[in-house]
Amino acid sequence: MRVSGAHNTTMKAVVQRVTQASVTVGEEQISSIGRGLCVLLGISVEDTQKDADYIVRKILNLRMFEDENGRAWSKSVMDREFEVLCVSQFTLQCILKGNKPDFHSAMPAELAQPFYNHILETMRSAYKPELIKDGLFGASMQVHIQNDGPVTIELSSPTAPSDPKQLAKQEKQQQRKEKTRSKGPSESGREKTAYRSRQDPNASSGADGDVSSEREP
Amino acid sequence: MRVSGAHNTTMKAVVQRVTQASVTVGEEQISSIGRGLCVLLGISVEDTQKDADYIVRKILNLRMFEDENGRAWSKSVMDREFEVLCVSQFTLQCILKGNKPDFHSAMPAELAQPFYNHILETMRSAYKPELIKDGLFGASMQVHIQNDGPVTIELSSPTAPSDPKQLAKQEKQQQRKEKTRSKGPSESGREKTAYRSRQDPNASSGADGDVSSEREP
Repeated sequence: MRVSGAHNTTMKAVVQRVTQASVTVGEEQISSIGRGLCVLLGISVEDTQKDADYIVRKILNLRMFEDENGRAWSKSVMDREFEVLCVSQFTLQCILKGNKPDFHSAMPAELAQPFYNHILETMRSAYKPELIKDGLFGASMQVHIQNDGPVTIELSSPTAPSDPKQLAKQEKQQQRKEKTRSKGPSESGREKTAYRSRQDPNASSGADGDVSSEREP
Repeated sequence: MRVSGAHNTTMKAVVQRVTQASVTVGEEQISSIGRGLCVLLGISVEDTQKDADYIVRKILNLRMFEDENGRAWSKSVMDREFEVLCVSQFTLQCILKGNKPDFHSAMPAELAQPFYNHILETMRSAYKPELIKDGLFGASMQVHIQNDGPVTIELSSPTAPSDPKQLAKQEKQQQRKEKTRSKGPSESGREKTAYRSRQDPNASSGADGDVSSEREP
């Protein structure tokens, strides 16, 4: 159970939509993907499998891509069968002490490494293993990210509600929702949405007030 | 004044330490930097100049770089005279409706664009104008980010305390602190810190429990 009032203690991810991305260690390229998502993942000291499940589900199901007709925010990385490059990034668990980053809320490496590997396995089982690529945990890397749009979204695993019964209920509701969607989502709700932009329809540096107003079915 | 209880309504930035970064629109490269920071900036509907001042101050003063002796988290982008590439990124103002991103908390483009330009001017005045580069607001861009480490930090402007007097006090304290630092920071507090890593000292995919423990002087 989380400490009430504690902050910065959820699992965090920076998810960047990419045209391509790769990781090099020294001169060697150890990993690369084409279109898809580059995910920087920060695990906190208090994270559990529940946090991991939430983050993995969101990464794989978030509608970060346009559909075949160019309609934005319609399709997930799985829908489009794109790739995921995931890199561990403890610096996301940062608390500022003035201008000095403090990383005590990050899970220590000896615990984070097996947990991180397990998260990758979870992601691979939920999708296609060959489409999930990895960095090299603990190594000094250059991560080459061609951010497409750009589109970048921050994820945080939800902080636990104080009532464990309510937590279990929320979890079940969410799972039921996901199941329904993957069996064959109704498009009716989504068809009502019109994505409009005053500028380039793919531009995402300036927001249009009318994007993505409808709720999940 | 912010609506109490509202979430996702602070200015947000994803700050990535880079070896190099650039922006292309179509075939044309419109901007590029060498070592420094690539900043993706998301402005919310409720943001004011106070939020901008905080974010700019943090971007320029955060100790994201090592010093001459390789000691990590010692120097800011200004200390090292590195560059900043800033790109507007409304998608950081994202609320998830299930798996659908909703961007209603992003400041609409017609207001965000002049505000964003003003933020860039603030950053240029606080540092060296020629070292602050920009994307192209509202355009569909490819942002090429060579994330060094990787090192990525999320920033959010603080939510306002309910008491305006307290807010003014905090602001003054912070400004006094920054002024003292820029005149000639005492190194004594920092010298006490030893950056240790079980693996590569530059690696940031796995956290060491001992990093960055000391507080600001």
